[in-house]
Amino acid sequence: MSTNFNLKHLLGIRELSADQIVHLLDTAETFRDISKREIKKVPALRGRTVINLFFEASTRTRTSFEIAAKRLSADAVNISVSTSSVSKGETLLDTARNLQAMSPDCIVIRHSSAGAPYHLARACSAAIVNAGDGAHEHPTQALLDALTIREHKGRLEGLRVAIIGDILHSRVARSNIYLLSKLGASVSVAGPGTLVPAEFAGLIEQGVRLERRIEDAIVDADVVMILRMQRERQTDAFFPSMREYAVHYGLHLNHLSLAAPDAIVMHPGPMNRGIEISSEVADGGRSLILDQVTNGVAVRMAVLYLLAGAPGITEKPERQDVSDSTLRNGTVKKQRSRKRSLREEE
Amino acid sequence: MSTNFNLKHLLGIRELSADQIVHLLDTAETFRDISKREIKKVPALRGRTVINLFFEASTRTRTSFEIAAKRLSADAVNISVSTSSVSKGETLLDTARNLQAMSPDCIVIRHSSAGAPYHLARACSAAIVNAGDGAHEHPTQALLDALTIREHKGRLEGLRVAIIGDILHSRVARSNIYLLSKLGASVSVAGPGTLVPAEFAGLIEQGVRLERRIEDAIVDADVVMILRMQRERQTDAFFPSMREYAVHYGLHLNHLSLAAPDAIVMHPGPMNRGIEISSEVADGGRSLILDQVTNGVAVRMAVLYLLAGAPGITEKPERQDVSDSTLRNGTVKKQRSRKRSLREEE
Amino acid sequence: MSTNFNLKHLLGIRELSADQIVHLLDTAETFRDISKREIKKVPALRGRTVINLFFEASTRTRTSFEIAAKRLSADAVNISVSTSSVSKGETLLDTARNLQAMSPDCIVIRHSSAGAPYHLARACSAAIVNAGDGAHEHPTQALLDALTIREHKGRLEGLRVAIIGDILHSRVARSNIYLLSKLGASVSVAGPGTLVPAEFAGLIEQGVRLERRIEDAIVDADVVMILRMQRERQTDAFFPSMREYAVHYGLHLNHLSLAAPDAIVMHPGPMNRGIEISSEVADGGRSLILDQVTNGVAVRMAVLYLLAGAPGITEKPERQDVSDSTLRNGTVKKQRSRKRSLREEE
Repeated sequence: MSTNFNLKHLLGIRELSADQIVHLLDTAETFRDISKREIKKVPALRGRTVINLFFEASTRTRTSFEIAAKRLSADAVNISVSTSSVSKGETLLDTARNLQAMSPDCIVIRHSSAGAPYHLARACSAAIVNAGDGAHEHPTQALLDALTIREHKGRLEGLRVAIIGDILHSRVARSNIYLLSKLGASVSVAGPGTLVPAEFAGLIEQGVRLERRIEDAIVDADVVMILRMQRERQTDAFFPSMREYAVHYGLHLNHLSLAAPDAIVMHPGPMNRGIEISSEVADGGRSLILDQVTNGVAVRMAVLYLLAGAPGITEKPERQDVSDSTLRNGTVKKQRSRKRSLREEE
Repeated sequence: MSTNFNLKHLLGIRELSADQIVHLLDTAETFRDISKREIKKVPALRGRTVINLFFEASTRTRTSFEIAAKRLSADAVNISVSTSSVSKGETLLDTARNLQAMSPDCIVIRHSSAGAPYHLARACSAAIVNAGDGAHEHPTQALLDALTIREHKGRLEGLRVAIIGDILHSRVARSNIYLLSKLGASVSVAGPGTLVPAEFAGLIEQGVRLERRIEDAIVDADVVMILRMQRERQTDAFFPSMREYAVHYGLHLNHLSLAAPDAIVMHPGPMNRGIEISSEVADGGRSLILDQVTNGVAVRMAVLYLLAGAPGITEKPERQDVSDSTLRNGTVKKQRSRKRSLREEE
Repeated sequence: MSTNFNLKHLLGIRELSADQIVHLLDTAETFRDISKREIKKVPALRGRTVINLFFEASTRTRTSFEIAAKRLSADAVNISVSTSSVSKGETLLDTARNLQAMSPDCIVIRHSSAGAPYHLARACSAAIVNAGDGAHEHPTQALLDALTIREHKGRLEGLRVAIIGDILHSRVARSNIYLLSKLGASVSVAGPGTLVPAEFAGLIEQGVRLERRIEDAIVDADVVMILRMQRERQTDAFFPSMREYAVHYGLHLNHLSLAAPDAIVMHPGPMNRGIEISSEVADGGRSLILDQVTNGVAVRMAVLYLLAGAPGITEKPERQDVSDSTLRNGTVKKQRSRKRSLREEE
């Protein structure tokens, strides 16, 4: 495995190599322990500026990135851009250039338009992190999902993963399909509209198995991922009502009997209980939904650290963190053995 | 007095013992000086995460908690949940569990529903602080009020406190009544609806004297607390207009001649000048309204420190703060004599 | 030049002496380098509290002040007051007094009413910084503009500066006119309504040349400042439509041929491309629009440092920053030669 992590931005999983994904996951594993400490803080990004630029409301993702930045000692600045400010008339590129002129080290962007982070990346020398762009990608969600699977299954390769829900409009599904395919898992999907052939050409290329019925996708699955029914975006194109959706694509306990005996259940949140997932499943022993959230902070710490922090680690050799150097030079095995050495904040 | 402060959450004053209240006030007194320094910061909560989760808009209370957290060197994360996000469909418990999964040390919650903080406390291992829940309790307000009274009167026991305003719907009144009763003050109240007997059974149990006229409640009072007329919540149940309210329950200078000669006046803010309080009173020599705000920061520092910080104080013995140990082990007297020793932030 | 910077608040450029302006610019120059470092942080304002109190939405100015505060290690607290909270009935003075009671070192205020920062200054012992008050002043904008001009022209004295746009309603224009006049630049203006004589009496007193046509103002200009067309505030008083405005007061490449050969172009942002400025000009080689943003952070660091930090620098002599003392005691020349000595954050 390459230890040379050469990545300037995190725009999507599609552009990443399997090695880069594994390196991100390994780094995240290293950071997971920090949040379990009493002093949940390391000085890795001290003096760095991380801007959270959110054009869509998001409590949980923004909070996760903000906590990640602060636990790395970065200065975190939140910008919520409502449509009212956009009416002031500035283009996204001008917003990006202006923020860049304030010398941030990293800009985390969520935007309703697919591709918005790519625009930023062209205009900025700061590292750009895609926190969800339209129906395109949500790479840190896929990474935290993968970290959670690996934590519980020990691997991704060879696993069968079922993804249930509105695949076509889900950036979570898209990023997960890219990641799982790259790391050797096999993916089956079921949801409204999965029989529409044209839009799914790309999925089939990724080796994804399309099913019409949720049961067919779940059979023998090691992992069942339920997507959020995005009420707020839903048009009536594929199904007539919430109730209709719940009946056809809601995950219930009896579904799980079709899956592998030790199958795990995941959901990106926020959940619509009783619609895409029953409370028995959500709160059941197979559910890893809260582990996903915990791993989300670790993944975002890893992403911020690798993109915004790497070149600056050496500025104070006498106070340097052992694991900082292993993160840059060492092998993954070394990182793991030394992961407890990440120094606490002073 | 017990020096063993055994409290996991601060949900309401009702659940506290007199000893616990006094310990909170003593600790707050210790912290009050920090905000008077040039370097208004101590490292007590460095590496701790405090989330301010506000489901109701609140400039002043959120700012007070945020400043308190930052002066203790905690990482403060603000989450304002508008009704629009709630429409995403997640339950309060799921929101709580999700935040908990990000490993905060403390969650400060304001919510329009009475009891919301209790729900959080059941779902979270983080310390929960009630920053106001519906018409139920607002414990840090009662604590800062008590600190202000004690600062100016030297004690609470035996004092006569008049609370004027819409007692029935006021979480401020409720928390204050619990606290004042526990610490031996006697309370009289007057306001619209104070003759409605059923709802006040609980108040009478606390020993509260119900009056119909503001003058009757104020006679010989050592402390006059005026409640905010909550225009935004007001229905016409008890009085027909603002003007009507001002005439019957507005506090004027002439009212103060009925009170004790050295009576003090308090208001939780924000004030409606000319409605529940005249400017002559608000800006007069007896008004402690701004002292209350100052004490609010100190009280919130104490609450965050005692709930989120206590077990972590020992991690760096060589840099340990003298008053940290006194706060845990010493007597109140010791704390006071050493309160200047809280180390400055470096 | 005086090195004795005796200023408690920054309310407007009008009240500043030329010496004070130069001292602010020199200090900003010193701070500009900090944002170019890997560790973009100095401990100058550690333990100080800076409140950003914004009654008008502003992404860029608030972000600039927040980043400035954090790079100085201050605790930054953002308060956005929407009209809905104002409906709670508290006066601006009461808001100010309440914030003051939380012991901030500096309050940065943006408000839609001219003079609001002056009200705060009367109520607060904290340093007040005007971040834009109605159509009155926006002093940090004028300072960052001046810093940008000085950076590229080496001086302000003797320069010809053209300001194009809705001068009458622009706080940016007003602050710039004061500053440029004080430092010996000559100013010409053109824009809708510039023939209205009464309102411009004050401008003429400042030595400003009023022109009707944009071309007449630009002739031989060393600096061309384009104002933002404030769509959101625009009434139809002076021109009938956006298109009308663009035709008469939009800056195009051909205009620049009238200016001095090495003329520079500035805009306070956010830009309405195609209205007050063409993209050819905005993105052209003469545009310093992004340099203005970069200098904005430096100017705000200087302002916060000089107003909130000066007396506190000596509290820890053994860790004192060399440039801290030069900033207080030394000459400007000394400051410059030592500007690299501002210690990094540890």
